Order: sequence, then structure tokens, then C-alpha cells
Amino acid sequence: MIRLHVTEALGPEAEIVPDAGQAHYLLNVMRLKPGEALLLFNGRDGEWRALIEAAGKRGCRLRTLEQTRPQSSPPDLELAVALVKRARLETIVEKAAELGCRRVRLVITRRTNADHAKVERLQAIATEASEQTGRLDVPEVCGPMKLEKWLDAWEPDRRLMFCDEAGDDPDAEWGGPAGRATPVLQSLPSPSNEWGAWTILIGPEGGFDPAERNRLRSLPFVTPVTLGPRILRADTAAISALTLWQAGLGDWR
Amino acid sequence: MIRLHVTEALGPEAEIVPDAGQAHYLLNVMRLKPGEALLLFNGRDGEWRALIEAAGKRGCRLRTLEQTRPQSSPPDLELAVALVKRARLETIVEKAAELGCRRVRLVITRRTNADHAKVERLQAIATEASEQTGRLDVPEVCGPMKLEKWLDAWEPDRRLMFCDEAGDDPDAEWGGPAGRATPVLQSLPSPSNEWGAWTILIGPEGGFDPAERNRLRSLPFVTPVTLGPRILRADTAAISALTLWQAGLGDWR
Repeated sequence: MIRLHVTEALGPEAEIVPDAGQAHYLLNVMRLKPGEALLLFNGRDGEWRALIEAAGKRGCRLRTLEQTRPQSSPPDLELAVALVKRARLETIVEKAAELGCRRVRLVITRRTNADHAKVERLQAIATEASEQTGRLDVPEVCGPMKLEKWLDAWEPDRRLMFCDEAGDDPDAEWGGPAGRATPVLQSLPSPSNEWGAWTILIGPEGGFDPAERNRLRSLPFVTPVTLGPRILRADTAAISALTLWQAGLGDWR
Repeated sequence: MIRLHVTEALGPEAEIVPDAGQAHYLLNVMRLKPGEALLLFNGRDGEWRALIEAAGKRGCRLRTLEQTRPQSSPPDLELAVALVKRARLETIVEKAAELGCRRVRLVITRRTNADHAKVERLQAIATEASEQTGRLDVPEVCGPMKLEKWLDAWEPDRRLMFCDEAGDDPDAEWGGPAGRATPVLQSLPSPSNEWGAWTILIGPEGGFDPAERNRLRSLPFVTPVTLGPRILRADTAAISALTLWQAGLGDWR
């Protein structure tokens, strides 16, 4: 069944007019006809079955029938990712949506090459992935922010899982708090019914700068973790870390 | 440091002549000059530091110096994946190499669209990803085989983790052994020092056919697992399942 994210309020007998891109998708790509059904969600009112009430050259009009699922809140899991190459960043946003992230933050680190990103395009990818994965909301993509500034304004009660690519190396160059990073699963607290707010931080392909690593290691809300003995690309690291969090603390349990 | 997979035996003072593609990569892409160093591995003799001894228009000659790491065996973890679209299959092979898979098997299921794959191209992707991820071997990519035939010839003592995309659905259409699939982490046996041989099976985008699901569910060596409440694309499912296995039973502990 086709699922569409809309911005309008959803309720019984609501009339929804999809935007031009959505109408094109429904009528020309998926070839839906008046009377055929699809599912709608807006991140607030749950999921609703709707019919195509009318369709023409200029678009179409939908009418909701009944709610198919009530709204549910995903765990408060954020992914913060250093700007990496466009194709890889797009993959990361798509996967963050599939893996139940609530928010994707783009961060600029000392070794980040890019300093801008097409946030609107990434948001569209997040929306499409959310439609396909069956979730009832869409993760927000937040524009690039400098790592240092972002850490300065840290939200109380949020934990940061720092995926430290040098964490397994006993001779690592960082001079911060001693000790190796621990494997993700061993580092997570025992799950309670409350998920708690977490952010997972994935570095740029060139890794974090020693000063950045030192600061991250010294912050009280940071849990440094390792992702195994091999070097992972940024997209693999993001997917693996999100998976382990969901399996250990999130909605995969 | 550049890492190159070679087929020749590696030992002290070994002379290695890279093939044309590798020579082009070393001399023209990475611009290495005679006297510069790189790392070599062949899956048998560990990792060796080598120098470019001579370089010319027709290629180059390398000479090994000393072993940098002894050969190690990865866990006996296979990924069996239904043929999916080319780009997604290439991603899966790349990630299987990063995540320490020993072998990638391509399987044909009833709902598989494609019936062939460019195995040689996939093997090249596996080799390149192995060079970059720092492992000492390259996963073998095995050409497509029908699911039924593959199950008929099952190797004793190997377990199959069946990622059942309908496993969470109490009204699922399969009529086989009752019961929901369990989350991966809860389904794995307690880790011992012996990893044991496992295969992870990822279905096609359209899912498994009910008859296939029934058969898989009834086999004594199969552990059906779910990968959370959302629908995952095949590449995400493969990466997530491999990650959970490595974290629970493999070399990420």
C-alpha cells in the first residue's frame, strides 16, 4: 500500500490536496485512479486510510476514511554526522529514517571537507524513506553546525554515544582520559522502560582531530564506543551504531 | 597507508608484480614513487610492508620488507542474499567485507527478479573494500544458486539466521511452526570462545514466498529473527544483521 506524508491535519473525512510532486507520483508513477486507496500520515495524527476522490490534469484530491494506526512516538534517538560526501550523506539520512532516528544533525568538524549540505534535498530523502519504512513521522534534518558550538549548548539529560574510530588503538594519539572505548553493547546502560534521550556521533572519513577527541572524551555525558576491529566507512558506522542502540535500548527489543 | 590484495605468496624479500590495474592505481592514481612503501596481504601469509622497487610505463615491481601483522582468521560468518538490484547488491557486498564476512552467497528465491549477477565485478568490490577496511583476507563471492537447492545441501553444524521480514506480524500468512521470530540479540546463543559457523539470510525486496518461509521455519538449523518494527531495505537489513551478529557472537565483543 502506498504511504504518503502530508502536512495537513488528519481526521475523519478530511480533505487533503497533495502537492504537485505527490500528485504526479500518485497519478503518473503509481497510476492510482479515483476510488483507489492509500495511507496518509503527518507525524501527529497517526496513519489514515484515504481514497482518491477526484483526479485531473492539475492534481488530485484525497478524502480520509478511517485511522489505521494511532500516532506513536519513536525513541528520542538523534544521529549527528559530520558532513561527508553527498552520496554517502544521502545514504546515511535514508538509513537513519529506516532505523527510527528522530533527528539527523549535520556537524562540521576540523577534518570535515564540505561546509555546506543541501538540507532540503536531505529532508526530502528522509520523507521518502519514512513513507517506505512504515513509520508515522519523519526525522528532521538540521543544517550544519560546528561541533564545538553544538557541544557548548548541550541539552541536559541527553547522552552522546561517541563512535571513536581510534578507540581500539592502545597507542592512539589522543591524550585525554585514559582507557579504551568499549564495544557498544557492553557500554549501554541496562534498558528501562524509559528510553532516555541519546545522540550517536559519527565522525568524518578522516576521523576526529586529537583536540576534538580529547574534548569529547572528557565530557561527562559522553560514552566512547568502538565499532569492531575494522575500519568502517561513515555510512556503515552510522547504520551499525543505530542498529546496536535500537537492539540494546530502543524499539527493536 | 595503501593496502593491496595480491595472489602471490608473501614472505621475506618476496618480489611481487602487481597486475596492470593495480600498477595503474599505485603509480597514476596514488602517485607512489620507487622507494615508497605500501602494505600487501593475500589472505594466507598475513600483512607485509613492501617497497616499490622499480616503476616504469609497463608497471612496477614490489619487494616485501617485513611482516606487519600475522594472518588471522575471521569468524565463519556467511551472508546469503537474494539477488536484488545491482546498486544495492554492490553496497551489500562492500558492507559484508567491512563487517567481516567470510563469504557472500547469492541466492535465487521465488520472488527474486534477477537471475544473474556480475560475480566478477562483485568480487572486485569485495577486494577493494577489504583493502580499505584493513582485513587480512577477502570474502569470496559465490555465484547465484537456488534457495531450495542450497538448503538441500546444508552443511552440518552451520546455523542459519533467517531475517524474517514478516516475523513480527502475528497475522503473517505463513502457516509453519507457530510463534513470532525473536529479536536478533535475544535469539543468539551465549557466546563461547568458539564462534561456530553461521549464515545470515536476507530475502528479496518482495519478501519470501509463504512456501519458502514455511520451509525455512521448519528446518532445525534455522533461527528466525526480526529486525525491528520498521520495513528495512535489503542493504539495511544485511548491515544490521551482520552488525548484531558481530556484536553478539563475533569479533566486536
